[in-house]
Amino acid sequence: MGYVKFSYDQLNRLCVDAFVKFGFSKSDAEIIKDVLLTSDLYGIESHGMQRMVRYHKGIEKGTIKVDAKPEVVFETPVSAVIDGHEAMGQLNGHFAMELAVKKAKENGVGIVSVRNSNHYGIAGYYANMAVKEGLIGFSCTNSEAIMVPTYARKAMLGSNPQAWAAPADPYNFFFDASTTVVTRGKLEMYNKLGKALPDGWALNKDGNPSTDAADVLANISAHIGGGIMPLGGSTEKLGSHKGYGNGMVVELFAAILSMGGTSNKCMVGGKSNICHGFMAINPAFFGDPEAIKKHFSTYLQELREAPKAEGQTRIYTHGEKEMEAIKDREENGIPVIDKTMTEVYDLCQYLGLDFSKYFGDYKPPVEGVKATY
Amino acid sequence: MGYVKFSYDQLNRLCVDAFVKFGFSKSDAEIIKDVLLTSDLYGIESHGMQRMVRYHKGIEKGTIKVDAKPEVVFETPVSAVIDGHEAMGQLNGHFAMELAVKKAKENGVGIVSVRNSNHYGIAGYYANMAVKEGLIGFSCTNSEAIMVPTYARKAMLGSNPQAWAAPADPYNFFFDASTTVVTRGKLEMYNKLGKALPDGWALNKDGNPSTDAADVLANISAHIGGGIMPLGGSTEKLGSHKGYGNGMVVELFAAILSMGGTSNKCMVGGKSNICHGFMAINPAFFGDPEAIKKHFSTYLQELREAPKAEGQTRIYTHGEKEMEAIKDREENGIPVIDKTMTEVYDLCQYLGLDFSKYFGDYKPPVEGVKATY
Repeated sequence: MGYVKFSYDQLNRLCVDAFVKFGFSKSDAEIIKDVLLTSDLYGIESHGMQRMVRYHKGIEKGTIKVDAKPEVVFETPVSAVIDGHEAMGQLNGHFAMELAVKKAKENGVGIVSVRNSNHYGIAGYYANMAVKEGLIGFSCTNSEAIMVPTYARKAMLGSNPQAWAAPADPYNFFFDASTTVVTRGKLEMYNKLGKALPDGWALNKDGNPSTDAADVLANISAHIGGGIMPLGGSTEKLGSHKGYGNGMVVELFAAILSMGGTSNKCMVGGKSNICHGFMAINPAFFGDPEAIKKHFSTYLQELREAPKAEGQTRIYTHGEKEMEAIKDREENGIPVIDKTMTEVYDLCQYLGLDFSKYFGDYKPPVEGVKATY
Repeated sequence: MGYVKFSYDQLNRLCVDAFVKFGFSKSDAEIIKDVLLTSDLYGIESHGMQRMVRYHKGIEKGTIKVDAKPEVVFETPVSAVIDGHEAMGQLNGHFAMELAVKKAKENGVGIVSVRNSNHYGIAGYYANMAVKEGLIGFSCTNSEAIMVPTYARKAMLGSNPQAWAAPADPYNFFFDASTTVVTRGKLEMYNKLGKALPDGWALNKDGNPSTDAADVLANISAHIGGGIMPLGGSTEKLGSHKGYGNGMVVELFAAILSMGGTSNKCMVGGKSNICHGFMAINPAFFGDPEAIKKHFSTYLQELREAPKAEGQTRIYTHGEKEMEAIKDREENGIPVIDKTMTEVYDLCQYLGLDFSKYFGDYKPPVEGVKATY
């Protein structure tokens, strides 16, 4: 497995053209592309380009409806419920957060809950939409069950990320994290590398700790049992009930308020059933937004300057790593796993796009990969 | 160290009389008492009766001002900032959550941020105030720095609990947890018992893992360095940055929006500087509140009925343990550590209250304990 780097511009043109070919309007394709490539720019490659196949499969299987449009089914000046009608998660998410932002700008707070959606990419993208308007943003999503509740043997919650973002200098606070110890993508990486999982990540089908990535992943896919531990592990000693509780808060904002499918109902019966939650909060409804931003920036600076642990040289505040990743990728290009490029090549064939138009003379590996697409 | 049990009625009368003697009005004493005894009823004794001494010391030192009243310094239909003027945390918290609830009932959402307060007891008490009105409740507080950020050696955040509560049958969802692995109270228990701390809880003054409870506690008190790990431990492998991030969200709602003191400024320079955040959300602004409640109740039931891990007989949903603790304490009385009763005896002497009026013939241990009061 190797990496190859491309410019943002190359991937940008490919993504937009591909989603237009799938049948999305130009403006919708731009939104989907922006969510995916923002993830790659942030260094969260598991949720970027490499998801193209998943979306293609979703469209083919009919769990993603290309023509569907999100519909506001309940609304007040500070809240809304949206039926996503199985549209692309990115389009439902973008629509919902725009609505939350509008409400927060006008009325101080906007909370929007979305049902019947699909995978929407990184939760943080939507939280950041609020920050771009000077607001505090929150976004969360449930997903196919993968988190095993404390003392259970069966996954009943998704990886259920919560993302929070707020304005600060020199860069915004940006905290986007699953409520599990790690995400499924991490397990997949260990499996590809043939490495044993670290202790404290996963459970086998009996609900006992396991370091066997291949076994855990197979059990998850087959719904046999086992999965990933909540943040805090599998017992109360290190706080398993806390990660599990934070995952429940996600279900509340995403699936409960919208009357949508909880994670244990996701990817069941030919429907994704994924739900999202969004909130925007206007600092101007609490005082002088510039003073609040400055106050937060001071604290973040104090954190970065705090005494380091022995052998450590740096304390990160949330959002710092993403800003550095963007700088790196703008200067040096976006790294993509070569296997993903084979998938992109096949996708171009399928859609009737000229691969070389985007990637010139680059040739992706062929053998032993096409079959998985 | 032993436990002795008393009826709710006995402790109730003692608490109210004591806080009236401290100079609080009858109605304020009732609020403070209700927060403390609710904690004991829930089985969270670290935040109940045994805190009487801490509040007494705070009043004596002047960090708690008996005559102070919370003041709304900024307000909109969905938000408010309150200056707590160093009043009792329970009174500021109760006042703030009542305001958040009122706003949520009228306008859908209420977010209130409080600065210049004191320890307010269990965060969950205030979240539950919203549930009693059919709303979703959120409450959080910062505190004296005790959480060491990932890769730091110095505590920069408090235990920073987040509490969420929402209506459900047969009992409400109630999730109240520090964003550290454990609270300081847990370390104190291990220290009293002379036991080594479990791996993954605490750090020494150099920022390295430590199992020495006495050393860690001494370092925290002397602000030498070290403290408790964020939920997820001290490295990113098990998600340290996630507990740290959740702690930051608490600072945002409590200290940033209110322009108050962040945890690293708490208990510094003769001021508590503690800040709180509150939110109430009205389910009726998202649809039929009864249907939403039923939807959530169904999911909670599915969680409890999910297959158990090998050797486990039960999966808890959040709030279940607290409801069972209440039942137990109503039937069998509230357990109080006998050392706490010695403190109560001394407090009665100090305030001119007749200890026997509340506790009859019970005599607390005397030797070797009075000195610590």
